[in-house]
Amino acid sequence: MKKVKVAILGFGTVGQGVYRILIEKRSQLKQMLGVDLEVAKILVSNPNKPRPHAAKELLTNQIEEILDIPNLDVVFEAIVGEEPAYQYLDRLIEKGCNVITANKVMFSKHGKSLQEKAAKHGVQVGFEATVAGGVPVIKTMDNLLRVNKVQRIQGILNGTSNYILTQMRGRGMAFEEALEDAQKLGYAEADPYNDISGQDAFRKLMILSELAFKEQPDWKDVKVQGINEITSQQVKEATEKGMRYRHIAVVQKNYKTGEVHATVRPELIDQSHPLYSIEEVNNAVAIEADLLGTVTLVGPGAGMLPTASAMVEDYGDMLTKTKNVISI
Amino acid sequence: MKKVKVAILGFGTVGQGVYRILIEKRSQLKQMLGVDLEVAKILVSNPNKPRPHAAKELLTNQIEEILDIPNLDVVFEAIVGEEPAYQYLDRLIEKGCNVITANKVMFSKHGKSLQEKAAKHGVQVGFEATVAGGVPVIKTMDNLLRVNKVQRIQGILNGTSNYILTQMRGRGMAFEEALEDAQKLGYAEADPYNDISGQDAFRKLMILSELAFKEQPDWKDVKVQGINEITSQQVKEATEKGMRYRHIAVVQKNYKTGEVHATVRPELIDQSHPLYSIEEVNNAVAIEADLLGTVTLVGPGAGMLPTASAMVEDYGDMLTKTKNVISI
Repeated sequence: MKKVKVAILGFGTVGQGVYRILIEKRSQLKQMLGVDLEVAKILVSNPNKPRPHAAKELLTNQIEEILDIPNLDVVFEAIVGEEPAYQYLDRLIEKGCNVITANKVMFSKHGKSLQEKAAKHGVQVGFEATVAGGVPVIKTMDNLLRVNKVQRIQGILNGTSNYILTQMRGRGMAFEEALEDAQKLGYAEADPYNDISGQDAFRKLMILSELAFKEQPDWKDVKVQGINEITSQQVKEATEKGMRYRHIAVVQKNYKTGEVHATVRPELIDQSHPLYSIEEVNNAVAIEADLLGTVTLVGPGAGMLPTASAMVEDYGDMLTKTKNVISI
Repeated sequence: MKKVKVAILGFGTVGQGVYRILIEKRSQLKQMLGVDLEVAKILVSNPNKPRPHAAKELLTNQIEEILDIPNLDVVFEAIVGEEPAYQYLDRLIEKGCNVITANKVMFSKHGKSLQEKAAKHGVQVGFEATVAGGVPVIKTMDNLLRVNKVQRIQGILNGTSNYILTQMRGRGMAFEEALEDAQKLGYAEADPYNDISGQDAFRKLMILSELAFKEQPDWKDVKVQGINEITSQQVKEATEKGMRYRHIAVVQKNYKTGEVHATVRPELIDQSHPLYSIEEVNNAVAIEADLLGTVTLVGPGAGMLPTASAMVEDYGDMLTKTKNVISI
């Protein structure tokens, strides 16, 4: 069976999840993918930090060591932030390596140029994990777009915000109290700014816009509002009317004017809305298409194993595609 | 651009939907799929019946005329019932033709043998439209199965039953009244037996079982119960407790014993159940997998355009696969 060399860039929660799946599921993956995946290197910032789960000789802090691996087939990138992730992937693609990323901050900005470069070099880019973790939004959209026109996408794209809103309603908590609770449970970062300000959902929405409409609205025209100004009094009043606050990211295209318009903000919705029932840390995306109508996908929007699974599934998908550079 | 010859078998609602999409979306499909799809023949039972939307010279009631089309690339099959659909597809595959079906009665029984035959002849079988219409359950499962083990699948697989239960709760209707309403709106057939007895959901569940577990439980061991015995009094009492009746098809595998177990019946569920909020004629499938957790897909489970779109999407997917016999 053909051996495939793999590298992992970044070894936080998601990178470790990818490693765990590649090790623990090695025999299932062999059977399902028809190749034997072997982790050749892992890029970390500090290779001397003790890591109980990965052999020390796999670790490096030098991207050159990864670029020098002969016949490297694919990298799984789970670094936080735009740089150096973008330049790493750019150079890897140039060397003929497939790339799979979970990095929404980087991909919302550089996704288009990475994909164009990949097409030129005959490799593929997987980015399912950049939006909604383990929920297969990207592949579903990719597929339906072959036949449908997408008119609008509405999503609950930040699990932390949804968790906080759920607790404020269900347990009558104040915003700060619910946030603290989310932090205790590991749903929110120590610095929760990106989540509760709407910035995290905004970046994911831009990735969906690029895929559905081949363009993004001008970022400065998008009104981005978080959940931090919602009071428990407002939540109580909404509940009494049978309504719910949801933090919803929306992007839609007006096919007459060609204009793509997006908003990210808390919205007060009733039972008839497809995102009304999405609770706790779940993410959900409702895609409205001309032939299919509204298809809604719901599931875990984050977490080690769901996100890492989405990345390994991306590789499985690549292996079935004609453009794939690996000959099995 | 390469021309691709297509035939449609069966010209009821779904067959007409496929035809409409191929005609009305011809230029989008050219652009997205990279081929020009041309309908060569349509198999109908009575070619003399006036059909305003399709040219008379396309119609035939002779399968031989379809089998004789040179370089026929794909057939879209939307015939009702097991035979002659199965033998038609079997013969077409033998001739090297890709097949795409919406026929759950046929496919739940013969899917495995059609797929084995297709593998031998280097062609592909698409069956997304056999389960939950336009909701991409098959592709999602296919993809996640490369990395995950599926433990359980729960689905609302019959839109008519779900519509009736929704009306009984929301509008206080009796079963018969809600059924009549569904028939008026075209959601239920004149003979609603397959829908309300659970048989329709059962066949779809068996297709999901085959895909997820590579096997089906013995059909005679599956308890299949419809919604026809639920009274409006029972629905009222459930509503008072915050519970809802849903007609749920479940299949699960016990990986210790290897046993696959399925039931199809009305269940009383509470708010925490992923299918609690699925209303009206929607279908939904909740897939529980070892890495991803629970992913739920919701959308239109039937209807001309959603189902037909799923079939044409299947063809788009085939074109990206390495096994595809068409060289573009």
